[in-house]
Amino acid sequence: MTDPQVIAFRPEPEQFAWTFGGAAPVMRVQPGAVLELWTEDCFAGRVRSRSDLVSVVCEFPFLNPQTGPFYIEGAQPGDTLAVHFISIEPSRDWAASTTVPLFGALTSTHLTATLQDPLPEIVWIWQLDRAARLCHFEAAEGDFTVDLPMVPMHGTVGVAPANLEVRSALVPDAYGGNMDTPEMQAGVTCFLGVNVEGALFSIGDGHARQGEGETCGVAIECAMDTVIAIDLVKGRPTAWPRLESDTHIMSTGSARPLEDAFRIAQTDLVNWLVSDHGLAAMDAYQLISQAVESPVANVCDINYTSLAKIRKEWLPPCHGPLANTHQRLREVGRSYLAGK
Amino acid sequence: MTDPQVIAFRPEPEQFAWTFGGAAPVMRVQPGAVLELWTEDCFAGRVRSRSDLVSVVCEFPFLNPQTGPFYIEGAQPGDTLAVHFISIEPSRDWAASTTVPLFGALTSTHLTATLQDPLPEIVWIWQLDRAARLCHFEAAEGDFTVDLPMVPMHGTVGVAPANLEVRSALVPDAYGGNMDTPEMQAGVTCFLGVNVEGALFSIGDGHARQGEGETCGVAIECAMDTVIAIDLVKGRPTAWPRLESDTHIMSTGSARPLEDAFRIAQTDLVNWLVSDHGLAAMDAYQLISQAVESPVANVCDINYTSLAKIRKEWLPPCHGPLANTHQRLREVGRSYLAGK
Amino acid sequence: MTDPQVIAFRPEPEQFAWTFGGAAPVMRVQPGAVLELWTEDCFAGRVRSRSDLVSVVCEFPFLNPQTGPFYIEGAQPGDTLAVHFISIEPSRDWAASTTVPLFGALTSTHLTATLQDPLPEIVWIWQLDRAARLCHFEAAEGDFTVDLPMVPMHGTVGVAPANLEVRSALVPDAYGGNMDTPEMQAGVTCFLGVNVEGALFSIGDGHARQGEGETCGVAIECAMDTVIAIDLVKGRPTAWPRLESDTHIMSTGSARPLEDAFRIAQTDLVNWLVSDHGLAAMDAYQLISQAVESPVANVCDINYTSLAKIRKEWLPPCHGPLANTHQRLREVGRSYLAGK
Amino acid sequence: MTDPQVIAFRPEPEQFAWTFGGAAPVMRVQPGAVLELWTEDCFAGRVRSRSDLVSVVCEFPFLNPQTGPFYIEGAQPGDTLAVHFISIEPSRDWAASTTVPLFGALTSTHLTATLQDPLPEIVWIWQLDRAARLCHFEAAEGDFTVDLPMVPMHGTVGVAPANLEVRSALVPDAYGGNMDTPEMQAGVTCFLGVNVEGALFSIGDGHARQGEGETCGVAIECAMDTVIAIDLVKGRPTAWPRLESDTHIMSTGSARPLEDAFRIAQTDLVNWLVSDHGLAAMDAYQLISQAVESPVANVCDINYTSLAKIRKEWLPPCHGPLANTHQRLREVGRSYLAGK
Repeated sequence: MTDPQVIAFRPEPEQFAWTFGGAAPVMRVQPGAVLELWTEDCFAGRVRSRSDLVSVVCEFPFLNPQTGPFYIEGAQPGDTLAVHFISIEPSRDWAASTTVPLFGALTSTHLTATLQDPLPEIVWIWQLDRAARLCHFEAAEGDFTVDLPMVPMHGTVGVAPANLEVRSALVPDAYGGNMDTPEMQAGVTCFLGVNVEGALFSIGDGHARQGEGETCGVAIECAMDTVIAIDLVKGRPTAWPRLESDTHIMSTGSARPLEDAFRIAQTDLVNWLVSDHGLAAMDAYQLISQAVESPVANVCDINYTSLAKIRKEWLPPCHGPLANTHQRLREVGRSYLAGK
Repeated sequence: MTDPQVIAFRPEPEQFAWTFGGAAPVMRVQPGAVLELWTEDCFAGRVRSRSDLVSVVCEFPFLNPQTGPFYIEGAQPGDTLAVHFISIEPSRDWAASTTVPLFGALTSTHLTATLQDPLPEIVWIWQLDRAARLCHFEAAEGDFTVDLPMVPMHGTVGVAPANLEVRSALVPDAYGGNMDTPEMQAGVTCFLGVNVEGALFSIGDGHARQGEGETCGVAIECAMDTVIAIDLVKGRPTAWPRLESDTHIMSTGSARPLEDAFRIAQTDLVNWLVSDHGLAAMDAYQLISQAVESPVANVCDINYTSLAKIRKEWLPPCHGPLANTHQRLREVGRSYLAGK
Repeated sequence: MTDPQVIAFRPEPEQFAWTFGGAAPVMRVQPGAVLELWTEDCFAGRVRSRSDLVSVVCEFPFLNPQTGPFYIEGAQPGDTLAVHFISIEPSRDWAASTTVPLFGALTSTHLTATLQDPLPEIVWIWQLDRAARLCHFEAAEGDFTVDLPMVPMHGTVGVAPANLEVRSALVPDAYGGNMDTPEMQAGVTCFLGVNVEGALFSIGDGHARQGEGETCGVAIECAMDTVIAIDLVKGRPTAWPRLESDTHIMSTGSARPLEDAFRIAQTDLVNWLVSDHGLAAMDAYQLISQAVESPVANVCDINYTSLAKIRKEWLPPCHGPLANTHQRLREVGRSYLAGK
Repeated sequence: MTDPQVIAFRPEPEQFAWTFGGAAPVMRVQPGAVLELWTEDCFAGRVRSRSDLVSVVCEFPFLNPQTGPFYIEGAQPGDTLAVHFISIEPSRDWAASTTVPLFGALTSTHLTATLQDPLPEIVWIWQLDRAARLCHFEAAEGDFTVDLPMVPMHGTVGVAPANLEVRSALVPDAYGGNMDTPEMQAGVTCFLGVNVEGALFSIGDGHARQGEGETCGVAIECAMDTVIAIDLVKGRPTAWPRLESDTHIMSTGSARPLEDAFRIAQTDLVNWLVSDHGLAAMDAYQLISQAVESPVANVCDINYTSLAKIRKEWLPPCHGPLANTHQRLREVGRSYLAGK
């Protein structure tokens, strides 16, 4: 293994992408490269104190800025892009969370419309102790505080959509995007189907941590210093984003209602076990029924996202074209980190 | 009233738009103009006999070609575009309908995923008796035939989306698009909120008739000769497409699950009665609860579409900026038709 | 045709049934009988003025009192009960409608839970002009009034459920119950599958009129004088309630989300066209896709209810066991009314 | 602490309950008692080999037999029943799983109706190695086998419903019932709101293990020897079932669509943090958004079930009437096990 090309990129504000598709690439990258990236938070950095209400300081539709898109040399429709997360580290010592009027799971919204008044708009600033890897919560009312473990992740990871579409960076769908799954951590590889030449990969929306479902619609939002390794699997289509960790493979589905997201992810996992692990479809259906973990990612975005996750040690060996991709990228990551 | 500008436009195949947003305008048009348009059917004219299966003859994503977009002079975000349908007439004496694998309400789909086999793919060619205004059905199996009344309509009517997005012409959403409502008939005015300069209005997907819900996902699809009058209401935002006929006003909502589409349309109608007809919100809620008609438009597309429809004679008079728009455009249409 | 047995029954308050299933029959009735019934309104008559708030004057679970159940002699699981509505007439000159906290389509509810405050609780008393057949609305705020046509109907019609269950009279499901469809008018026949010996039919929840969807959750609720003719079709199972008018046949589905209610009704109508009208399933699917009307009944109850409705004149002749049932009961009704 | 009353009960087949509500109690039990119970599997023990298809050997509606109901002395509406699981052990060395036509998440069903053919009906017999605590899978097609950890649980735990209802043991709702959550393990306490005098608690549907969502609709179904401790919290209502383990508190919601189940559970957890832990509602909303785990229980039953789960160590101390209930019952369990 030769040393990978290492590229650092920190976008200026005017370089942010606000969509998947429709933005000119910021850079062309060879498969095999390692990218050292910086991503701004979902508020474009404008929520900095308890008085910075989203409805006041943010300017729609300029939310959820993406770093990218990157044109991956050689990527063509029908290929799969592999994005391995080597490290994801908050780049500031604080993060912000908020409620946003008519957004979130426990309120009516523009899509689940009612005649009720919206909930109050509140900002919480979380202090991040990056050494201790803790996120410090202070209640807005009363004096309760608590430290939660920091588990940095990216809410938004994706490529340009199919069907000539351009989608807001707030949307998750078959091309990835704003899936908001806590599984998108360091050590994980994400597989994305390529829809257009060059794939046009972007990333953003770092979270210091997030609950499953992102109930109020907003995680502990922070700018990130993130290192990824990029690879390309030629001639392998991927219908919905998939993830692989050292221990699990995971399918995702993004749709409404939530059971449709669940069905997509579970069906995709059955199909994966059939195509790459050699199980019959009904056996795969039975096996996942007893073995699957099904964490919800978000239940607040334009599409809801559900994951279907199974331990690799419980499966027949993988014979597909992805067989060693995660393993190989993991090694790239380990070398990179060792070399720091 | 001076005679309106009358513009005829028949796109060549390479001029079709396949998206809302993202396509260059084919023409700039003044508010007040009358447009004589031709639209191709949703199959781009490729399904012409019972042996022309969509999965064979059509080329994704080149489905549902739109005539347009038209740049409306002076249209800016925050305005409302009024599109009045003067006439909608099938331009051929036949139309096609089909099943499409994993598409439609009574099958699993790519979004409502199951492990079952898809339904068979079948084409029905409907003969249109345009003089008698009848659509002639022949069963694929057995010899049953029946004539249904022709009620020509446009499935797809819309403008460029907000939020920097470009959407496939197969999608309905807040910008209109593929709503597939049988209410989009001659004599009706459609109000669309303008999201980008020039509005970028397009139209397509003519149906000789359609059931409520478009159950199998495909109506009696035909090319259309359609005449519309265009107007612009400055400084009036419109959140979701609205329709007005001589007798009714109608709100639309497009979302999943279907109750969310219902909620959007009903909430929008309440808001309309409050802002333009002077009712208190709770009184409007009570009145529509007893008076509303709620026809479903489609229950098969990426978003489902529901309408909320109420008789104008049951309402306090309209004092809003749209007060006479439909009336005025109706007169334009009557003059135009009288002059033919 | 011999004169049918005519039975009058007006329940005392302690005779009301509050469930489908689980209540002892008030009477045994022969198929062929005509029943002259009185039903109390859904508030058990307790909302009589604008100050009678449901949350104050009503006592849960004693809502939606049913007249019945009637034990139909000879009815067994696998049979179908036919209930023909000869007449439905408000028995008072006023009716009530209300909002109910956390109930209705345009508010969060106990099932669609949010953290928002409930909407205000308001009562509207509608005056009924039974001679002119008008319902008189007075706005709670301001002085707007309007008269809407009276179209009396029963929201709740059903038999004992299958599977050993007892359900609240507020629920619609496969046994009928609180479907809240405006189609349940005089002149219509309702077919209900029998689940237990004697069927145990009951009826209630009269509405002077109702919008499609019953948006706020409450119609123009009134006590009714209702005459029905009862018949039994032996050996014919009915999975979901069906209706027949002089012009249409209609299937119902009750489920959540609303698209599932839609799917049930549309699938049932396809199955009906196959079993009784001799169409192939795919031809029936195509025909209804172009010909169906799909009125929503309620989008507020524990299950939502959707109808699929098609003109009989557009169908091959009916050869099933229900072929002349509606016709025959219609004649019974005409004779009865002529004899008054 | 005095020794609790210990009662053993093994129902004869004719003693099974098939519903929640509507069944006479098998026994009266004092709060504080320990019950040594046996439960039959959901097939009533009729699926014993790969040739025993559910559609052939089982007799609807006699599925999911419950052990109970137990009349809890002193329990009244408005109280909370606490059920602590001391141990749950498979009582046979095998278990069964199957597909059932038109049941499960990855097929159309009677409620999500389509025109497609059902999936094949297949039985898998799982061998249970109770010493090694493993469940042994053998593929129906091919020779793949794998051992999964045994994690015994009860799918069905509940009391009689409110609103005079009787529900099939296959249904989960506010009274508990067929929630099918893998969290219902030994060591956990389940809190159920009492709706009728005596609560009428029953239990059944043992699973040797189950994936999250119970994707195919059937877990690794087995008869169980289960020991529980019962307690009663007077004057404390519980709207939806709640669970407590040594480390977490958990709310449940059961509804369709799945996002409504999610909303119920998450809202209930917010309310719990407000009422018993003293947080302001918006602070609780923020905290769970970052800290909650949201495992799906089932996405196949009449209602879908979702859990909202949070670590107790991250909360202010509990001041509510449940403060030490789990702790105390845990001690009862430890004593019981120590005494065996």
